[in-house]
Amino acid sequence: MTLKVAIAGLGTVGAGVAKVLLARGEALRARAGRPIAFAAFAAADISKAKGLDLGGVKRESDPQALARGDADVVVELMGGEEGAARELVEAALKAGKHVVTANKALLAHHGAKLAPLAEERNVALKFEAAVGGGIPVVKALRESLIANPISAVRGILNGTSNFILTQMEATGRPFAEVLGEAQRLGYAEADPTLDVGGGDTAHKLTLLASLAFGTVPDLASVAVTGIEKVSAADIAFAREFGYRVKLLGIARATKDGIEQRVNPAMVKAGTPLADVEGSFNAVVADCGEADSYFFEGRGAGQGPTASAVVADIVDIARGNIGAVFGIPATKLRKAPPAALAARASALYLRFQVRDVPGVMAEISRRLADEGVSIGSMLQRGRSPGEAVAIVMITHEAAEAAVARALKAIAASDKVFETPCMIPMEAA
Amino acid sequence: MTLKVAIAGLGTVGAGVAKVLLARGEALRARAGRPIAFAAFAAADISKAKGLDLGGVKRESDPQALARGDADVVVELMGGEEGAARELVEAALKAGKHVVTANKALLAHHGAKLAPLAEERNVALKFEAAVGGGIPVVKALRESLIANPISAVRGILNGTSNFILTQMEATGRPFAEVLGEAQRLGYAEADPTLDVGGGDTAHKLTLLASLAFGTVPDLASVAVTGIEKVSAADIAFAREFGYRVKLLGIARATKDGIEQRVNPAMVKAGTPLADVEGSFNAVVADCGEADSYFFEGRGAGQGPTASAVVADIVDIARGNIGAVFGIPATKLRKAPPAALAARASALYLRFQVRDVPGVMAEISRRLADEGVSIGSMLQRGRSPGEAVAIVMITHEAAEAAVARALKAIAASDKVFETPCMIPMEAA
Repeated sequence: MTLKVAIAGLGTVGAGVAKVLLARGEALRARAGRPIAFAAFAAADISKAKGLDLGGVKRESDPQALARGDADVVVELMGGEEGAARELVEAALKAGKHVVTANKALLAHHGAKLAPLAEERNVALKFEAAVGGGIPVVKALRESLIANPISAVRGILNGTSNFILTQMEATGRPFAEVLGEAQRLGYAEADPTLDVGGGDTAHKLTLLASLAFGTVPDLASVAVTGIEKVSAADIAFAREFGYRVKLLGIARATKDGIEQRVNPAMVKAGTPLADVEGSFNAVVADCGEADSYFFEGRGAGQGPTASAVVADIVDIARGNIGAVFGIPATKLRKAPPAALAARASALYLRFQVRDVPGVMAEISRRLADEGVSIGSMLQRGRSPGEAVAIVMITHEAAEAAVARALKAIAASDKVFETPCMIPMEAA
Repeated sequence: MTLKVAIAGLGTVGAGVAKVLLARGEALRARAGRPIAFAAFAAADISKAKGLDLGGVKRESDPQALARGDADVVVELMGGEEGAARELVEAALKAGKHVVTANKALLAHHGAKLAPLAEERNVALKFEAAVGGGIPVVKALRESLIANPISAVRGILNGTSNFILTQMEATGRPFAEVLGEAQRLGYAEADPTLDVGGGDTAHKLTLLASLAFGTVPDLASVAVTGIEKVSAADIAFAREFGYRVKLLGIARATKDGIEQRVNPAMVKAGTPLADVEGSFNAVVADCGEADSYFFEGRGAGQGPTASAVVADIVDIARGNIGAVFGIPATKLRKAPPAALAARASALYLRFQVRDVPGVMAEISRRLADEGVSIGSMLQRGRSPGEAVAIVMITHEAAEAAVARALKAIAASDKVFETPCMIPMEAA
């Protein structure tokens, strides 16, 4: 029994999937135990599929037609959390077709509603390619790391942001300049907001958290800070303290609920996440009792992402369907989000101050007033009266208390800019 | 329909599996879609299961009885490539029962014969716990990294050896002393041969190679060198050159066939494998076009290994059976082993020589005679006439040619010990 596959969207990833299905039929058949046929597609633009023999493949002008056709699996690679992508996925599931997608935005926003559509009809809704590109982390959380409760899942989930931070560190150049270059080279989108603003990481984190904790995907509870305000100075200071700045997505089971956040963080040099370079992605799953797993690989690009889509298709061919988020949607817990106000961690703080007597006293007093204690400190400045940086790392402190202190400090006429605060992330 | 599980062997891992099955029934049921019951066990010694309520679990005095009982899955955790373990696995498969095992020796030796037994009866023979402890690398190779051909799989697969090398590096102490301490602490077996001699790594590599390349497991073709002769001096010199010494298992698809080898290797500092510390394990899968995946985690211990066994049991409960080595045993290729004589790589060489005129000339000439060219060199010595170390890293050279040169050099009366040769491993 041949498994018939329809693909919506023949961009970089779609063309990659088509290429593998057309070129590696025998190998996939051996793994799947049955033939897999690329039966139909819909695509506004097929320029990326140049060189592929699409002669035997039915082309639909309307992607929605794929949900009504005779394909067993619809692969949605159009992207976007609403519109055609959402419409197609819903229609395909309702028509009893399996769906494979790389669309993290769609699933982060609507996964809680889409999962039951799939599970009621006993079809798959698979999304390995939505997180970490070719890294099989969705499968690992869904099928492998299941014997013991997971306490936290943390990752570098956006290759564009990691590329920019890596370049800023290597060159000492400011964010805007490095972003511009990344855009010229095609490493960053014309509108980079979703990448550098942390939204894409939040989408992916939402999916990982649901898989790790057995909870309803809860995008609205992710606290998001992007990398736009990370300065070359912060990266240089981080290095002096033995840290690197990374955009992390962190989901943690706390006694008050699930904490989900995306923010630049100071990661200790020499730990696995700190060493993730350029556009690579990585995920750490902490399973308690010092039992952690680390996964690293290319988080984007044709080869890796198509590889993840194809693995999902072969899984479906083999009958490995399973619940969308690991346990049936009806059994996913609605975990309360952990109160962000209660969050405590060691923090990196940077103040740009006028080099005049009393400034250090004022900053110290404001922090002490809020019960924040300083672990290490660095002041660097040359010209009295000019701006100098005061950098410190606090002991573990309530972030809300630190924020109050920073607000008071920012109001001082001895302080130039809004102080910078970056959490320190444990290894 | 409850899935009934029988466990043979309640040592550290068996007790860990029992504990999870008894304590996490509801969570596993949600993932498996059906109840999983710990129904029976056989164990000579149940001291590790202290604290577990085995009241409702049937105890057999003969493990072979588990193959005749009413369990759906037999979990073999007795170990050993022959004897009771092999007998039980064969009998269970012949009786149409699924088998889960952590027994790499058994599968490396007999996997080619056991796989058809399982596949003919459409039952599972799963072994996630046999390689890399809790790291889901077997599943990753079997189900995820399947769209594109894998060019190489490389790993740190023996935690004991990695622990010893890490300790030797940290303390500068010799192999025998660190091994003795590891034995006293319980990190190394009384008979450490299988670990430090590379045999255990060879077993695991054989399984990874079969999964990665779709080939018949071929333990006999693995070239094995252990870490017994790695000296503290080699580790210190490695560090000076920017490398660390690791015991690697490497399987590579070459144009002549599959190369499989286990040996100490110089791994460039800062690359993922070089940073694997202590008893951790890690695997790199190279999928071509600079697309590599890295997996790291605890390679042994109760929690991680039991976690892998439980994941296999849940997979079976969900009906995810599949071919033992990813593709049906009848379709596994018998790939020719790559001729080891043709192997070429950059090599680290160390000579202990008498510090007299002409020694360097003799070594250089012997190497040049065999066409071996030297990339970098280091000589260190203080007292003329005494032993000094000459250390060099060659450019890529045929290992057979280097071996001939070393043999000639070893015969010189200016050279004290058998020269040491350690391959350099690319990142």
